[in-house]
Amino acid sequence: MTGTVEKKLSELGIKLTAPAAPIANYVPFVRTGNLLTVSGQICLDADGKLVAAGQLGGGVSIEDGQKAARACAVNLLAQVKAALGDLDKVRRVVRLGGFVNSAAGFGDGPKVMNGASDLMVAVFGDKGRHARSTVGVAALPRDAAIEVEGLFEVS
Amino acid sequence: MTGTVEKKLSELGIKLTAPAAPIANYVPFVRTGNLLTVSGQICLDADGKLVAAGQLGGGVSIEDGQKAARACAVNLLAQVKAALGDLDKVRRVVRLGGFVNSAAGFGDGPKVMNGASDLMVAVFGDKGRHARSTVGVAALPRDAAIEVEGLFEVS
Amino acid sequence: MTGTVEKKLSELGIKLTAPAAPIANYVPFVRTGNLLTVSGQICLDADGKLVAAGQLGGGVSIEDGQKAARACAVNLLAQVKAALGDLDKVRRVVRLGGFVNSAAGFGDGPKVMNGASDLMVAVFGDKGRHARSTVGVAALPRDAAIEVEGLFEVS
Repeated sequence: MTGTVEKKLSELGIKLTAPAAPIANYVPFVRTGNLLTVSGQICLDADGKLVAAGQLGGGVSIEDGQKAARACAVNLLAQVKAALGDLDKVRRVVRLGGFVNSAAGFGDGPKVMNGASDLMVAVFGDKGRHARSTVGVAALPRDAAIEVEGLFEVS
Repeated sequence: MTGTVEKKLSELGIKLTAPAAPIANYVPFVRTGNLLTVSGQICLDADGKLVAAGQLGGGVSIEDGQKAARACAVNLLAQVKAALGDLDKVRRVVRLGGFVNSAAGFGDGPKVMNGASDLMVAVFGDKGRHARSTVGVAALPRDAAIEVEGLFEVS
Repeated sequence: MTGTVEKKLSELGIKLTAPAAPIANYVPFVRTGNLLTVSGQICLDADGKLVAAGQLGGGVSIEDGQKAARACAVNLLAQVKAALGDLDKVRRVVRLGGFVNSAAGFGDGPKVMNGASDLMVAVFGDKGRHARSTVGVAALPRDAAIEVEGLFEVS
């Protein structure tokens, strides 16, 4: 029997695969008290391929950036499931930090990050409504178009 | 009757207006336990206009950047007031994260961010002394010159 | 008599000097409950000189970037010691945030940040294994090649 949140994921056609291993000497999440800090996730798909590479305001369209942001959110959820076993233990998505690979002057980062935020609300409902910071960065690991980190209150 | 902190704001000639609504699918703040996480605020004035647009080390002077950083801090306070009702419930400004829209090589981000930090100390005194990270980013929402996020310990 | 962690530092040939004073109006760390937030530290050596200046993917090699990241980690530890008196009070390195001064398209930030992560694990063992976000930024204070902020669970 799967929990409420995973049923919702399934309805959305999202299957969580084994989460990406960190590409360096760190861990994907740390729990301290009721707070779960999840490492920045780049926009890899289930096959480990980048959903979008390069810069917004450069070669990457807003639509592709949104898909990439959604992939980051899926990867965050895979890490949360690995950490907790059960996504129903998430009491609140506290914060998402969105780093958008951006050409100078690209001002539509928030539209791109909605790809991640919308998924959290679709999956968790009101518990998925989070604080957020979105900034445009010069470069990201593997030239990913977007990286998203997360902070969750958990039981 | 207004609280101590709001009296101080009033002495500084600062009026908190209705805080900016998030420009995307997220919320302006989340409280978990005694920690209040406030979403990144760009440098909008009371009329919703950018105090400064563009890059430091480009068209924006350090002085204008400082005014913009101060505006971000005012917007953070407006969100804290919306969250708590009373700014006297702030026990400590824990952390400010400053994202300065910067041309490559611009090394004076800390001077710019002082516009935000100085206001916190002016308003809260020792409780306003915070940890801080300042970085220069390639792009910000609406091409704002600066964005600041905040973490507060509250009662 | 020094603690276990400082003995380890000593074996690694690392001497913590007086931590850098903030170069602006903020403090180097804030403790709230069992969480210690440490301000972003740039790659200064014991003499206050930059270990590496400029951009990765520009004039700075990955090797020099790694040394710079290690210096940031040493500076974080100096701040933690100033905060706690005793590094053995660190229960867990919760999160490192790595900001790598990067030319557009530089995708090897994680390799650079390993200079900081590896030191934490060398010093603290399993308690040093942390969550991490690495992003490439357009500019850093004093044109430092890297800045790292830290979050620690402490007793």
